[in-house]
Amino acid sequence: MDFLADFFIRFLVQFQSPTLGFLIGGMLIAALGSKLKIPNPIYQFVVFMLLMKIGLNGGIEIREANLFAMALPAFFSILIGLAIVRVGIAIFGLLPGVNSADGFATAGLFGAVSASTLAVAIVMLEEEAIAFEAWAPALYPFMDIPALILAIVMANIHMKKEENGGGEVDVNVWGIVKESLRGSALSALLLGLALGLFTNSGSVLESFYEPLFRGFLSILMLIMGMEAYDRIKELRSVAHWYAIYAGFAPLLHGLIAFGLGYIAHLLVGFSPGGVIILSVIASSNSDISGPPTLRAGIPSANPSSYIGASTSVGTPVAIAVAIPLFIALAQIVFDI
Amino acid sequence: MDFLADFFIRFLVQFQSPTLGFLIGGMLIAALGSKLKIPNPIYQFVVFMLLMKIGLNGGIEIREANLFAMALPAFFSILIGLAIVRVGIAIFGLLPGVNSADGFATAGLFGAVSASTLAVAIVMLEEEAIAFEAWAPALYPFMDIPALILAIVMANIHMKKEENGGGEVDVNVWGIVKESLRGSALSALLLGLALGLFTNSGSVLESFYEPLFRGFLSILMLIMGMEAYDRIKELRSVAHWYAIYAGFAPLLHGLIAFGLGYIAHLLVGFSPGGVIILSVIASSNSDISGPPTLRAGIPSANPSSYIGASTSVGTPVAIAVAIPLFIALAQIVFDI
Amino acid sequence: MDFLADFFIRFLVQFQSPTLGFLIGGMLIAALGSKLKIPNPIYQFVVFMLLMKIGLNGGIEIREANLFAMALPAFFSILIGLAIVRVGIAIFGLLPGVNSADGFATAGLFGAVSASTLAVAIVMLEEEAIAFEAWAPALYPFMDIPALILAIVMANIHMKKEENGGGEVDVNVWGIVKESLRGSALSALLLGLALGLFTNSGSVLESFYEPLFRGFLSILMLIMGMEAYDRIKELRSVAHWYAIYAGFAPLLHGLIAFGLGYIAHLLVGFSPGGVIILSVIASSNSDISGPPTLRAGIPSANPSSYIGASTSVGTPVAIAVAIPLFIALAQIVFDI
Repeated sequence: MDFLADFFIRFLVQFQSPTLGFLIGGMLIAALGSKLKIPNPIYQFVVFMLLMKIGLNGGIEIREANLFAMALPAFFSILIGLAIVRVGIAIFGLLPGVNSADGFATAGLFGAVSASTLAVAIVMLEEEAIAFEAWAPALYPFMDIPALILAIVMANIHMKKEENGGGEVDVNVWGIVKESLRGSALSALLLGLALGLFTNSGSVLESFYEPLFRGFLSILMLIMGMEAYDRIKELRSVAHWYAIYAGFAPLLHGLIAFGLGYIAHLLVGFSPGGVIILSVIASSNSDISGPPTLRAGIPSANPSSYIGASTSVGTPVAIAVAIPLFIALAQIVFDI
Repeated sequence: MDFLADFFIRFLVQFQSPTLGFLIGGMLIAALGSKLKIPNPIYQFVVFMLLMKIGLNGGIEIREANLFAMALPAFFSILIGLAIVRVGIAIFGLLPGVNSADGFATAGLFGAVSASTLAVAIVMLEEEAIAFEAWAPALYPFMDIPALILAIVMANIHMKKEENGGGEVDVNVWGIVKESLRGSALSALLLGLALGLFTNSGSVLESFYEPLFRGFLSILMLIMGMEAYDRIKELRSVAHWYAIYAGFAPLLHGLIAFGLGYIAHLLVGFSPGGVIILSVIASSNSDISGPPTLRAGIPSANPSSYIGASTSVGTPVAIAVAIPLFIALAQIVFDI
Repeated sequence: MDFLADFFIRFLVQFQSPTLGFLIGGMLIAALGSKLKIPNPIYQFVVFMLLMKIGLNGGIEIREANLFAMALPAFFSILIGLAIVRVGIAIFGLLPGVNSADGFATAGLFGAVSASTLAVAIVMLEEEAIAFEAWAPALYPFMDIPALILAIVMANIHMKKEENGGGEVDVNVWGIVKESLRGSALSALLLGLALGLFTNSGSVLESFYEPLFRGFLSILMLIMGMEAYDRIKELRSVAHWYAIYAGFAPLLHGLIAFGLGYIAHLLVGFSPGGVIILSVIASSNSDISGPPTLRAGIPSANPSSYIGASTSVGTPVAIAVAIPLFIALAQIVFDI
């Protein structure tokens, strides 16, 4: 009972979070017929600012990480990110009535990582006095960025195929990959990543991109809410599929990561605390880096689907179910 | 003589304030034929940022306030805000040659509240060791927001009537109220208010909307200055009316509030310090929340009129005349 | 050898600076065919924000400075700024194949001042315990702003003459000066200067324009990088001229300033430390105030030329060669 109550409280708290609040606010004013508009150049700038920050952050995390020690867990993180997206797209492809662009975006969002879920896990590990490698949290960009890129590239390939008749027509896959990477979303993300990796951009990140991030995110959420209102009826017949996926996927993804983390434990001595962190990173679904990237990278996807699935079900499950589950599992498996 | 000197110094200090400085700067570069332009999407974004901050702030103030204890003073604040605008519009309607849109906007601005005047009053009460309820300063959104809404709605009704022939033609008042609330100005303000009331938006306010507020206000002032220059000659024949209104209105508004505050003192024990604060809130005329809201809500009004009246006469009167006056009055009435 | 190694390290460090990093990043994504674009209203706003900050900063520095004591060195600073631009333009006029707009902009950039070079000099003087007047660093706007204005005005006169047939046709010089001052670049700069001088704009500078400066500069650099890529081939045949100018000009400019500083030492007791600072200000070439001003003021100039010359050669020479040179020279001349 305690567990259910805890889950329910976290579920309600999510609705008070400013991120979801601005999204619902946007839907509300659209429903009330408000004439408020965020001009398009501002929207483009907001997305640029958000993606540049995500990229810079990832690049600096990787730059500062101990790449040699973390090589195998980092490789596994990439694999998990790609697998989550691949499997998610396959699942949504089987569900009747689900729009394919929405399925690609939702799979991408569940492959991406939530910084706040990760932060909760770190706090809980410290409370339980379970040690982990200092670089373990820096595994997240290795899962986050490949997952987002794969989702966008696969969505573009799919759309190109549909345009060409929908069948197994020959499409120039490498051409589409290049085209996706040149799109404004991924090129801002990768440019940020490169600048974070190769220049001393920590100061400009800390003084500009980082402090403006949450505010610009609130504006993006408002824009996405206004747009989501117009499209929410598209989801009426399929909303249950998103809820079921969002309820189970975090646990499935975490279990895959736990298994690979266990292998890394045996091969290179990856700590039990590190295995838990890897599992939580895989369970988490991005409420931060995902939406701006996917909104710009798969513009035809309905934000109501992927953000709804993630913030209203996926994140409460990751925090309230997955974190305690993987801590308990580690305590049994590693006898800590 | 001391008093006159003090008033004159405050008058001069106003002209060094960055708010008025950017306004005059805008007029100056327009007069010199500068080609500097702030692009329109930026202007719309600046207004959105300012209104969102004002709304969020008001919502959070109300959320954190002790609504039960402050119920009667809050109700009186709403009444006063509405009465100031209603009376102000009636006065400007009687003055010959005053443009009606300018009258509505000026009345709205004198119903709105100045945070800086309020801050001066709080400091002076503390220096005089006059106690007041901790929630008393939080009365301001109860006066500020209804006053701005009423001014904009009445302006829209008036303009619609004029379009329909100017006489007592039947206009759909409720339709115009809805239209006004759906306009970009009021819907941004009310959206911010709702988000402040119902979500945990304190962090995004503090990290984004709040720190950017004064800067974006400086840009809005610059834009309004450039526009005001083109329209200042419209005011030549009526400027004295604005000066007279701005000189007397703060004292009149403060006296009304003092009377209602006295009734609240008798009925629910509202403290003498609280009565002073209520009077100062009523005396003050907004140099902050008013201009962006009115600029977007009554776009046909000439900013030279309402901002000129408020910043060059109304605010010095409120600070240098009204605050000492109501402190002295309270000391006599309440024998403190 | 130590000296060469030091120079080379500073040269490489420059390429890790976020300023140059974003420039190169912009060139890179343009080369890779990215579709990332910064919308034009955002570009105009970024330039406005940067110029307003530069102007406000200069105005406040001058306002707070001891104008009486610093009168002669300030006058010499203006002279040096104008002379650097005048001589630079003459030199570039003699070099075969150099585009004249590029020459004007590069001369302007070497007349402008680098805050970071100045900061390095101050730290080194403190380490060597060489005293200087507290107001000496505030000499920089006296050199910076006249140099930028002169470069833009001369570029506009030149272009007007070319339009009118290129010969010694009569052009309305005063008309062009007025036109240049009314352009968006110089009027934002001068408006900021006036607001800094005459209003209490310190708070809005510190809370808004200053903290956003480096971030907006990174965005401008990105835009300039994207543009530079398209134009870099124009420079292939003349790049050596820029490298030679950028290598020698800082030392020449510093020597002129050292001479005038020495005269000020004899006439009004300007300190040896002050003379060094004046020389370093003259040696430095702006990586901060110059690019946005010149980009907006001489839009036809190729950013690859002036930014390339300054950041890749001029600044390392100013920091690694000029600062130690003028400290040593002062120690010999003033026997300190």
